[in-house]
Amino acid sequence: MIFIISVVLYRLCKGAPSAFYAKDGLVCVSISWIVLSLLGCLPFYISREIPKYVDALFEIVSGFTTTGASIVPEVEKLSHGILYWRSFSHWLGGMGVLVFLLAFTGEKGQGFTMHLLRAESPGPSVGKLVPKMRKTAGILYIIYIVLTIINFLFLVAGDMPLFEAVCTAFGTAGTGGFGIKNDSMGSYSPYLQNVTTVFMILFGVNFSCYYLLLLRQVKSVFKDEELRLYLGIIFTSIVLIALDIRELYPTLEETIRHAAFQVGSIITTTGYSTTDFDLWPSFSKTVLLLLMVSGACAGSTCGGMKIARLMLIFKSLGRNIRQVISPRKVDLVRNNGSVVDEKILDNTNAYLAAYIIIIFAIFLIISLDGFSIGTNFSAVLCTFNNIGPGIEAVGPMCNFSIYSDLSTFALTWGMLAGRLEIFPMLVLFYKGTWKKR
Amino acid sequence: MIFIISVVLYRLCKGAPSAFYAKDGLVCVSISWIVLSLLGCLPFYISREIPKYVDALFEIVSGFTTTGASIVPEVEKLSHGILYWRSFSHWLGGMGVLVFLLAFTGEKGQGFTMHLLRAESPGPSVGKLVPKMRKTAGILYIIYIVLTIINFLFLVAGDMPLFEAVCTAFGTAGTGGFGIKNDSMGSYSPYLQNVTTVFMILFGVNFSCYYLLLLRQVKSVFKDEELRLYLGIIFTSIVLIALDIRELYPTLEETIRHAAFQVGSIITTTGYSTTDFDLWPSFSKTVLLLLMVSGACAGSTCGGMKIARLMLIFKSLGRNIRQVISPRKVDLVRNNGSVVDEKILDNTNAYLAAYIIIIFAIFLIISLDGFSIGTNFSAVLCTFNNIGPGIEAVGPMCNFSIYSDLSTFALTWGMLAGRLEIFPMLVLFYKGTWKKR
Repeated sequence: MIFIISVVLYRLCKGAPSAFYAKDGLVCVSISWIVLSLLGCLPFYISREIPKYVDALFEIVSGFTTTGASIVPEVEKLSHGILYWRSFSHWLGGMGVLVFLLAFTGEKGQGFTMHLLRAESPGPSVGKLVPKMRKTAGILYIIYIVLTIINFLFLVAGDMPLFEAVCTAFGTAGTGGFGIKNDSMGSYSPYLQNVTTVFMILFGVNFSCYYLLLLRQVKSVFKDEELRLYLGIIFTSIVLIALDIRELYPTLEETIRHAAFQVGSIITTTGYSTTDFDLWPSFSKTVLLLLMVSGACAGSTCGGMKIARLMLIFKSLGRNIRQVISPRKVDLVRNNGSVVDEKILDNTNAYLAAYIIIIFAIFLIISLDGFSIGTNFSAVLCTFNNIGPGIEAVGPMCNFSIYSDLSTFALTWGMLAGRLEIFPMLVLFYKGTWKKR
Repeated sequence: MIFIISVVLYRLCKGAPSAFYAKDGLVCVSISWIVLSLLGCLPFYISREIPKYVDALFEIVSGFTTTGASIVPEVEKLSHGILYWRSFSHWLGGMGVLVFLLAFTGEKGQGFTMHLLRAESPGPSVGKLVPKMRKTAGILYIIYIVLTIINFLFLVAGDMPLFEAVCTAFGTAGTGGFGIKNDSMGSYSPYLQNVTTVFMILFGVNFSCYYLLLLRQVKSVFKDEELRLYLGIIFTSIVLIALDIRELYPTLEETIRHAAFQVGSIITTTGYSTTDFDLWPSFSKTVLLLLMVSGACAGSTCGGMKIARLMLIFKSLGRNIRQVISPRKVDLVRNNGSVVDEKILDNTNAYLAAYIIIIFAIFLIISLDGFSIGTNFSAVLCTFNNIGPGIEAVGPMCNFSIYSDLSTFALTWGMLAGRLEIFPMLVLFYKGTWKKR
């Protein structure tokens, strides 16, 4: 039954934004997501498994936006149907956003993410794909489905029960992170944990890289600046954290396994956990907080700022410094060898500004509930970046039920804004949007 | 003796950057500040009142950059000479930076702060003042000195001992915040606290407003967007905090007095305190954290992002949203009615990016010491924004001696970078700076 509802809802959502331009497209996408969420939470609410509507809404938005932050104190008490719907919402959300990114935005004019994707794809630039956009979207769909199935098979091969394997694969593919156990992935075997680590990292790669692999353009994949930086960051973070927590676990294998799992989970904004990293030392927690902000590659199912965007911000800053030194030199920002449009740099910087402003606004609202600065700050980062668990009172072994309705609502809005890359949700508040032409 | 040293040092510093352009100017300014600090901390070190050199360096940089964060556990144990030098360093630093802003930077090319000042001054634009820059700087000096003296007289009128009045006036004028008592301003009379509140807020106003007042252009002062926003933010914050802490103090007068003092102290990045605001509820602490980030007006002696810059960031973001909605409309960002140069918007966005990156970098380094996320985050914000005390373990009744040498050094660097508006300190690390032309 729930599956049917979900399909109907998804159709509803999918049908909505099709032949619109610029602002209509943005408004339509954000309204579809809002309506989808308002309806999608009904299974939780009607079944009385989550008694408050605002909590049910938080839970489903957390699902669709692939955040994975839960408001349910004990997930093991939920029925299988509800657990399935939670995990499936991740898979739908991950896929939906990817399609939204690649098929519906950027038709004309605004093309924010489109530009970003174009800026980072070395081979078949997104611009060139526009005429056959539907076909490209189809190929990405297939890659997504195939990767999910492979993940599922690996999990089953490790003796994970079928139901749990399906839910876990959905959560990993959508980089969502709803667990079906109270301790997330903590009680699974090392093999299952490692498989999940690898697949989380794989789902954090820009899907156009897989597309290129299918086209056998292996070289351009390995030359991709974002992918290199992504893998570099993961490797460095694992080493740093493993060094920092080396005394907490008995063996080197276990230390590295936990470090790798948490790094993969946080940078891809999945949010699974194998251990309570809130007990880790400050340095490791800070590294994880930074990974929360960075996020993984653009064009993946992950949240966060996206590495491509960070690279542009760094490069644009570097250029600013160079211009201070030699003001008259013409200086262009390059990515993978080709020049980046000034418009994109502008938009990226605006994105950063909007990002900061929204984080501080939500931070202020939820501080009314009186929890510690660390808890609140990580709660905002984790929901806005679509990660899942935070640190301190919203740590991996805790949940978001501590917050008041107002804060829950603010965090819910933040998850949607984070998932839709901010602008669609901001446009709703701009009065010019509602003027007739 | 210390006064003589300070004058010599100041001359040394003042003489250095005079007829240079762009990168030479930046390098020279940052090196002067570094040398000044390396020498300026000698009185602390030689007198053995601060036994470790790195701590002494932290203290004097905290002084010159008008941060006011102290590494001394009990200031009341320090000798009068040392106390005087600490407070005087605030006054020098506040003045020096103002002069640097108005007289030495922006001669040609980079002109970052110059542009910012030009963008916000409604009447005599800074651009027009360039031919008589020295004269303008002189007038600003005089305003600074006169305001300091008036502040001093008000304090003496409230029966504050002469020595304490001098030190307090220096700290207020430079918006520094080194207290000469362990409880900062807590034990002074309500009158003295209120006087200090008013003067802190006055020293947070763009000094060109006073210049305009002298020219009797009262109207354009009251129309100044930044000044209005500054006063609006102060008023709103006081009301919000007073409502939030109304049950902590016996009378309404006391509640408002403490709220106003702390708001004035934090937004102008002074850092005095009358009460331990770390004990305030989360919401009030979050409001204060946000004020730490905003800072007061550009062209004042304060630190932080500066309100003028925040306004530009908001306006530039608003334009981005408008452009998403109607991509073909030509849309310019305006300030006080006149169009803002695109270059300035670009620089402002780069400033924000650099700001975030540096905060996260220092945040990561000091997390090695293992204190809580809240403590570390506020320690970084407070030093980088040149505020002074933070919250939790570096709260108003605590000090920075808890940190290791590495962290102390990172925080010291952050104070300098924050004070010199980032770019001069970044240029030092850019290899192109050291190439011969």
